[in-house]
Amino acid sequence: MKRFQVAILGFGTVGSGVYRILTENHGDLKHRESLDLTVARILVRDFTNEPNLHLAPRQLFTTCFDDIAQDENISIVVECMGGVEPARSFILRALESGKTVVTSNKEVMSKHWYEFETAAKKTGAGLYLEATVGGGIPILRTITDSMQANNISRVMGIINGTTNFILTKMSEEGKDFAEVLAQAQQLGYAEANPTADVEGYDAMYKLSILSSMAFHAHMPIDVIYREGITKLTRADFETAKLLGYEIKLLAIGKKEGNRIEVRVHPTMLKTTHPLASVRGVFNAVFLTGHAVDDIMLYGRGAGCMPTASAVVSDVIYACHAHGRHRYMTFENIPGMSDQVELVRDFRCIYCVRLKVTDQPGTMAAIADVFARHGVSLKDVLQLGEADGCSSHITFMTYEAQEFAVQAALRDISALPCVRAIESVIRAEN
Amino acid sequence: MKRFQVAILGFGTVGSGVYRILTENHGDLKHRESLDLTVARILVRDFTNEPNLHLAPRQLFTTCFDDIAQDENISIVVECMGGVEPARSFILRALESGKTVVTSNKEVMSKHWYEFETAAKKTGAGLYLEATVGGGIPILRTITDSMQANNISRVMGIINGTTNFILTKMSEEGKDFAEVLAQAQQLGYAEANPTADVEGYDAMYKLSILSSMAFHAHMPIDVIYREGITKLTRADFETAKLLGYEIKLLAIGKKEGNRIEVRVHPTMLKTTHPLASVRGVFNAVFLTGHAVDDIMLYGRGAGCMPTASAVVSDVIYACHAHGRHRYMTFENIPGMSDQVELVRDFRCIYCVRLKVTDQPGTMAAIADVFARHGVSLKDVLQLGEADGCSSHITFMTYEAQEFAVQAALRDISALPCVRAIESVIRAEN
Repeated sequence: MKRFQVAILGFGTVGSGVYRILTENHGDLKHRESLDLTVARILVRDFTNEPNLHLAPRQLFTTCFDDIAQDENISIVVECMGGVEPARSFILRALESGKTVVTSNKEVMSKHWYEFETAAKKTGAGLYLEATVGGGIPILRTITDSMQANNISRVMGIINGTTNFILTKMSEEGKDFAEVLAQAQQLGYAEANPTADVEGYDAMYKLSILSSMAFHAHMPIDVIYREGITKLTRADFETAKLLGYEIKLLAIGKKEGNRIEVRVHPTMLKTTHPLASVRGVFNAVFLTGHAVDDIMLYGRGAGCMPTASAVVSDVIYACHAHGRHRYMTFENIPGMSDQVELVRDFRCIYCVRLKVTDQPGTMAAIADVFARHGVSLKDVLQLGEADGCSSHITFMTYEAQEFAVQAALRDISALPCVRAIESVIRAEN
Repeated sequence: MKRFQVAILGFGTVGSGVYRILTENHGDLKHRESLDLTVARILVRDFTNEPNLHLAPRQLFTTCFDDIAQDENISIVVECMGGVEPARSFILRALESGKTVVTSNKEVMSKHWYEFETAAKKTGAGLYLEATVGGGIPILRTITDSMQANNISRVMGIINGTTNFILTKMSEEGKDFAEVLAQAQQLGYAEANPTADVEGYDAMYKLSILSSMAFHAHMPIDVIYREGITKLTRADFETAKLLGYEIKLLAIGKKEGNRIEVRVHPTMLKTTHPLASVRGVFNAVFLTGHAVDDIMLYGRGAGCMPTASAVVSDVIYACHAHGRHRYMTFENIPGMSDQVELVRDFRCIYCVRLKVTDQPGTMAAIADVFARHGVSLKDVLQLGEADGCSSHITFMTYEAQEFAVQAALRDISALPCVRAIESVIRAEN
């Protein structure tokens, strides 16, 4: 029976869930895993504003990280604080003193992974982060422990539950963004300040981690194209339905040779696509490997117990590593010859909805601009307005270059017959 | 850089795929995993009837297992022969000589796992079997390495691609079983002798492994209720559609306290259920844990490269274990106090279709029999025949006891107004 003492940093939703699982399942883990895991310390910011203090014995709590850093009996530090500081400093200090770190903090990992990895390698400490992407869904472990023999060419997923809840409601109930956001906030699915979710930052953090792992190349957040869901309207969903599509906020990474593209944006998916039927706060990720082909993993991407389940699975995994932790191989960091080319001018299908004046030559003028920029059109849908003098025209393109489409749209917006570019939404197969 | 020599037993679809991945990805695995993996020997039955001999250098092949058993440089044996003997003897001899075994052979594992486990523990050899269930889908690793902190209460999945291909065709194209089976045989999706697939034996082998792992209790194949798909008719699919259901061959395991039930049978699922939309040869498995809630894994459940991908992931995983392999904890084997109760009188929803004589009192007589056996009815659908004197009545029950329903059906078949019990299909939520 091996014994490990664990410290938990942060005692909110995830931290308290980790404490609960480690305590309630202590006997099971001894029996099945031959591990005697105890929570030795819990770090909180202060004792006055912590709502969960009643969930653990008073003597476990501390407000001083030194109590953990200097306790040599603590070999595993679970970080569930969120945000960059002080999480970054605490993680670094733990790794530098040889303690293994398990974290659910996607923001700090996406911004400081390489720094952590370097510190961990120096002392031989472990660094585990399954809970940062997809909550309880074992996405990262599937890449590291089940797809090792695969060259992964694509990751594509719904990895933010808040936005998927909002988009599901907008699609199924025909409501506007603002109305559904207010409902999500009432239900606790969206924060009072929803920016991190609805503007795609949370998905961007996660995609940085997910694509770095899948492609063995460090994908910092500033190379990720990011677009949130705040501009989506009821009309977008109506148009999508007419054409047989759902709209989802997708995180997408593709690799072809050394060329990698990474992007987060609202995406139209055929209603028959498995990701199109992922509803509410659920998450799902597609992984495509050259040997295994498509794998999809589906489950709860957030919440106390699912995320804590992933954290505890990392803790147990780390214990079984017998002090021999493995580290990421980033092929594009200084000193590696196999340089990665980041693709910003990616190829995609575009759905463009315009408001135009009903007059002879309108369609021809617009189609001509697309053609001049090398953008081929697949479907066109024109719906007249009640006023009889304007229409909405929706164009679905074939796969086209992002930059060419953007240039075409600049020219189109300058046409006299075009009153407005109402929306531009990318689509994936 | 650690070096490992691997032997492959059997060079059919999976064995040759393993050779291909280990050879083609040799450089990647050195670079990313710090492992130098070479295939040292390949065992074949004879040299005259092996179609894949041209895929590897002649000097690697042998027909004599001793060449592998006695080669001390070979530390990992990959068994892809299928069937019980000689696979069982070879696996045992390999484990007894301390060689780690990786297998894709569900039949031999479901029948001799405990024997293998015992042999492996004695010498400290590893025993890995991810490829036995769900082809390339990391189902077993998810249980052992990502759900360790969960008490798993349910596994439910489509784990036989051949039958799912047949059922998908029957559902979508309204064809009969025999016609679609012939088509599946032509396409190579079904064997010349299709019994193992269509009678549910293959799914039973896999469920034995899957449920043993999920419930930490040895589930031998003879405790599994098994029913194949050969009796399903076009009428069953038509009735299912009318009621809003798909029909799938499901492998189901449920655990409540120490009570476990395991069964393989055609199952009606609401069309909105995620498993209902798993089409063709794809596989998918639901796992329900107390912390993580529902997880679904989806992908290719068979085929050369997907299955070989899982085998190679086991080989790499075994190499990283540094000689410290973990073993299953079966809680119901001799010497364990925590005895498991196997439930044969399980609870289920039943869809019963009868052919009856159209006369006053028919419905009342049948409903009365169900009532006397404590079976409550939820939906009833009666459709008259063209002859005007007979009808088809379909009853959907609420959840009821298997034995009570069987007893009711015996009494119902004796009623003068009942011409035939045309089908009985269970349903799951």
